[in-house]
Amino acid sequence: MSFASLTHAEEEGFWNLWFSELHKGNVGMTYKVKRILYSGQSRFQRIDVLDTHEYGRMLVLYGSVMISDRDDFVYPEMIAHVPYYAHAGARSALVIGGGDGLAVGEFLKHPSIERIVIVDIDEMVIEKCKEFFPRSKAAFSDPKVEVHFADGAEFVKSRDERFDIIIVDGADPIPPADVLFHRQFHENCREILNTGGIFVSQTESPFYNPDVIKEVYTSLGEIFRIAMPYVAWIPTYPSALWSFAFCSDTRHPLEQFDRDRCLSEEIETRYYNADIHAASFALPTFIRELI
Amino acid sequence: MSFASLTHAEEEGFWNLWFSELHKGNVGMTYKVKRILYSGQSRFQRIDVLDTHEYGRMLVLYGSVMISDRDDFVYPEMIAHVPYYAHAGARSALVIGGGDGLAVGEFLKHPSIERIVIVDIDEMVIEKCKEFFPRSKAAFSDPKVEVHFADGAEFVKSRDERFDIIIVDGADPIPPADVLFHRQFHENCREILNTGGIFVSQTESPFYNPDVIKEVYTSLGEIFRIAMPYVAWIPTYPSALWSFAFCSDTRHPLEQFDRDRCLSEEIETRYYNADIHAASFALPTFIRELI
Repeated sequence: MSFASLTHAEEEGFWNLWFSELHKGNVGMTYKVKRILYSGQSRFQRIDVLDTHEYGRMLVLYGSVMISDRDDFVYPEMIAHVPYYAHAGARSALVIGGGDGLAVGEFLKHPSIERIVIVDIDEMVIEKCKEFFPRSKAAFSDPKVEVHFADGAEFVKSRDERFDIIIVDGADPIPPADVLFHRQFHENCREILNTGGIFVSQTESPFYNPDVIKEVYTSLGEIFRIAMPYVAWIPTYPSALWSFAFCSDTRHPLEQFDRDRCLSEEIETRYYNADIHAASFALPTFIRELI
Repeated sequence: MSFASLTHAEEEGFWNLWFSELHKGNVGMTYKVKRILYSGQSRFQRIDVLDTHEYGRMLVLYGSVMISDRDDFVYPEMIAHVPYYAHAGARSALVIGGGDGLAVGEFLKHPSIERIVIVDIDEMVIEKCKEFFPRSKAAFSDPKVEVHFADGAEFVKSRDERFDIIIVDGADPIPPADVLFHRQFHENCREILNTGGIFVSQTESPFYNPDVIKEVYTSLGEIFRIAMPYVAWIPTYPSALWSFAFCSDTRHPLEQFDRDRCLSEEIETRYYNADIHAASFALPTFIRELI
């Protein structure tokens, strides 16, 4: 059968291919797939790029959705702009993980950011993102961006350079990304923060992974003077309620939030805005009770 | 085969029954089901009660999840307590739809509420909820609660009694619940609100159903002096981001929010709290742009 007739079958609706991401094997999201654009195995993980009906192109690592065309604005905006507008004037950012380049792309919206270093362990993730996602390609083409293919935990241990903002845009706490949830890693990150610096890490779903949140805050609360969770809605992530940890020794995310600057700069966003900045730190009672 | 061996197969993990709720046939949530506790057809719709692994018991109407044991706190808390604490001193509430009784249960947490009238078109929904969900049974047993089995739109048209709070806890805008999204219904609700009254309606997912939101706010914005959307995260609802419309001629949900009373009364909730009240009116940019 020729490729032309394969396409025809798909258009006629005979083609029913579904991809599901399950939580504990008991519940999950399921997506109707037009076509598998890429499937491969890097040194570290399985990598798939799917073209889906409702969410467009999707990057799937080890069977978990990382980004999709339709909802790729929420996570990168919330991990980048929240620390940016709580900082007194950030000029440099270190991104651990984040091989899709979308968080880098959000930092690049701020002309005051002069330098972004990104450290992802898996070169193939960056390659495939550049190949299939135009926004990733644009981010990695910017001369302000320096890419390292390395273990993020090793990188921060050995680095002399300091940063104004460090974000951990890593995968779930399973190898190779599990070290990004360890106390030693958090301490090393603090060591290479400039005075007035801010550290932000993704911390999983408070609904499906309450234990991760409990554990990580015990450690972060001892390392940083300020360690506060904030949340965002991400429809393709398990339970769709996602949490981040905002940590700093000097900058409070609400008291030091520069609302006027945030309003006046009018960067283009689809989720983040000055009201959302503050609102994302208001926690549902069941999350409050975890911490 | 005896029922005992059926149960055995289930425990051994041989039993793989999945229920999925799809959006546009292209994406959805999928749940592993232990057992179907009830399946039937009322005069108005198909009714199922499922026992699922991750979410416990679930009420499913016309194939859409309405409530589950695990996440049944978010929706009823957010549709009841937001108007309650924005009101100067509500004593009566009218619930249109809401046959699960959970919103009624939230109003009953406030001793100042003396009377709750609930109007659901489908008696069988209430019957089945009382049979399978203990919280529903408790709500409907309270002497403050008066139940009518009637068309909500007809009920408000012919009613003389007035209410301090009216909430529309109806299903999606397809028959029989589609009339609850019509302008005439909203106008009739306003007619039977006491002075200082508040009207709240669920208004679907802003991510999957932006057209519903656009349309409903055109009408609500002309009928009420104040018509403001607020959002909540509900993991079993399509996209997990849900919206509600807060409407009143005199009460602003933030300026007239009685934060001190909310904090001092300490009602037991798992999602709603004073910070969430305010934060739920902060809208992601893509929702702002709809309205």
